This record gives sequence, C-alpha cells and structure tokens, in this order.
Amino acid sequence: MYSESIQKLIKEFERFPGIGHKTAVRLAFHVLESDEAFAKNMAETLIEAKSKVKFCSVCYNLTDLDPCTICSNKKRLEETICVVEDVKDVIAMEKTHEFKGKYHVLHGAISPMNNISVEDIKIKELIKRLSDGKVKEVIIATNPTIEGEATAMYISRLIKPLGVVVTRIAHGIPVGGDLEYTDEITLIKALEGRREM
Amino acid sequence: MYSESIQKLIKEFERFPGIGHKTAVRLAFHVLESDEAFAKNMAETLIEAKSKVKFCSVCYNLTDLDPCTICSNKKRLEETICVVEDVKDVIAMEKTHEFKGKYHVLHGAISPMNNISVEDIKIKELIKRLSDGKVKEVIIATNPTIEGEATAMYISRLIKPLGVVVTRIAHGIPVGGDLEYTDEITLIKALEGRREM
Repeated sequence: MYSESIQKLIKEFERFPGIGHKTAVRLAFHVLESDEAFAKNMAETLIEAKSKVKFCSVCYNLTDLDPCTICSNKKRLEETICVVEDVKDVIAMEKTHEFKGKYHVLHGAISPMNNISVEDIKIKELIKRLSDGKVKEVIIATNPTIEGEATAMYISRLIKPLGVVVTRIAHGIPVGGDLEYTDEITLIKALEGRREM
Repeated sequence: MYSESIQKLIKEFERFPGIGHKTAVRLAFHVLESDEAFAKNMAETLIEAKSKVKFCSVCYNLTDLDPCTICSNKKRLEETICVVEDVKDVIAMEKTHEFKGKYHVLHGAISPMNNISVEDIKIKELIKRLSDGKVKEVIIATNPTIEGEATAMYISRLIKPLGVVVTRIAHGIPVGGDLEYTDEITLIKALEGRREM
C-alpha cells in the first residue's frame, strides 16, 4: 500500500524493540515530512555513535573513551565494585549520586532458558579485576529476577574464596509503595531484610 | 552521564514526535547493542527514503514514482476524487478496498490558530484538477475537527459553482461503539445524518 522506499523505512523502524507497526509508520512519516537535514543528521549520528562508542576495556560500560570516564576518574574509590547486568543500570545508579566506587557491567544474567551461560557474560573479566587485591567489596546489583538472583549467587560463590566482601543490594517495598499492593515475594524479601531501628 | 556520542544519539531520537527521553534511551541503546549493520542499514534507508520519496505531482501523495501508482492506475475511476488531509488518510481509505476513485492530499487543514491559511494547503491544486470537467464528484474526507470542517466548508463553496457534486463522509457512532459512551457532538452528527431504514 505504501511505496517501496516508505515500506522499507517503516520496516527499519519496526526492528526496534517496543516499536510496533503503527509507531513505525508515524516515525517514518515524520522523517519523510521533515526537511532533508533531519534524515541526514539522524543517519550521520547513527553511524558516528556506532563507530565511536565502544565497551570500556575495564568495566565493559559503553563509552567514547577507553577506559571510560568512571574508570579513569581518580576520585572514584577503587576498593568497591558495583556489579550490574546492563549499561542502563549504571546510569540508574549514577543518578543517585550515592555510589562512589566503580562498576562492572555483566551484559546479561545467567539464563539457561535463553541459552545464556556463565561464559556469555563478563564474569571472568570481573574475577580478573579482583586479582590485584585492591578491591575490598563487590556489591552485586543484578535485578531481583530468577536470572539476576542466580547470577548473584554464582558470582558470590566465586568471589568469597578470594577474601573479598560480597554484598547484595536490598530488596523490599519501594519508597512510597503500599503494603497492600506489594507482591508476596517482595514482602518476604522485605521481612528477611529487616533491620533494627 | 552518558558519553557524548550516546547523548547525541539519544537527542536525535527525542526529536521524533511521541518519543520521550526514556524511549529515546531505549532506542539508542538498541542501536549501540546491535551489530554494525543495523546502524548502517538504518542510516542508508533514511537517506534513500528521503531522496526517493517525493510528492505525486497530481494528488500530492508521497510516492517513489511520479505520478503515483494510484494516479497512474487506469482501473481507478477518474470521475471521483476523495480529498484527505494527510498521506496517512489515503492509506486508511485504501485499507477499506471500497473506494475506487482517486485522491487529493491537502497536507493539512485551514487553521488560523496554527497559522495555516488557504494558501498553505493544496486547495488551488485541487481546483486545477477539476478544470477539465472529467471529475463528477468530490468526496471531502477531512477529519471531523473544527479545522477539518472549516476546510470542508471552504472547499465545497469553491467547488459547487463548477458544477461538481460535493459530498462529505458521514460522521456518527463508530461500529461497535456504545451510545452511552459517545460524546454529544458525535451523537448530534449521528442524529443529523440519520437515514430511512
């Protein structure tokens, strides 16, 4: 129904996760109805970002510079590493302005269901970072899902023998949440994680 | 917080209508996490679509070929023109497989509020198409909004003196709709447009 080039453009947009046909059509038409510069800038930025952005060779965060700005920042504590599943989790952590250590991005979690094994994520790279003995604590901040928990468990067993303290971020009722609407698993976690007042 | 190239890519995505910061981040990271070919294909398709897709010189639909496939289709009736506001409206009409005539895309509706006047949309181009006397009916299918109605009214006044029949698509309760939840204006339209059974 659409002409060939339009159809091709719509299909490209549909390849993004969470973009259905209707949204893809809307985005494609926005490109076609905008001036030439819009498509050109977009195309150039895509190519540029893809060529410039690499994984940091230390923490595996996405970065323009290697090592990344966090890894090369002298003010960040070298003795604490926060382990996360995903690049976006680093951003979430950074937004708190609370954590002063460094990161390690696993790029996934162990998931036999999805054929993601220990070798597919950056676990051995994490162990390697601990070899010089500078790191005193590893905070495991993988997601509170089955995969995230399994990964946390696996990593903690691997690290403990090295004499490094392994901690897990707390799971419980989110601030502003309501007991009534909290699921059972979260409530169990909240009870387990209770602290003296 | 994100490195420069990532930030630039996120900003490009945010320029699309309906794409907020969080979605832009998701799309940008999808590009960065996909292989090189993804960004390359996307960039090429953007440039290609923008350079190939033009307005049809007859009906002002977006098309790879000029005149477009609908205008050059000998099987389509030349005597009926359906006037729509937008390219996407042509697709909506085509999906019905009911309309066998041709189209005319106005690219907007008269809207003094948004500084869109009669000259800004393709009205004079429509009048020009009627000059050879082949067209017997103009169906005005602009949206049932204040702007769409005003545009419909303006066009009908312009065309009637030419001896061409001007019709307006029906407005009423959508099929599957419920009287209880129908707004007053639609109900009034539905009453006005009642037909003998």
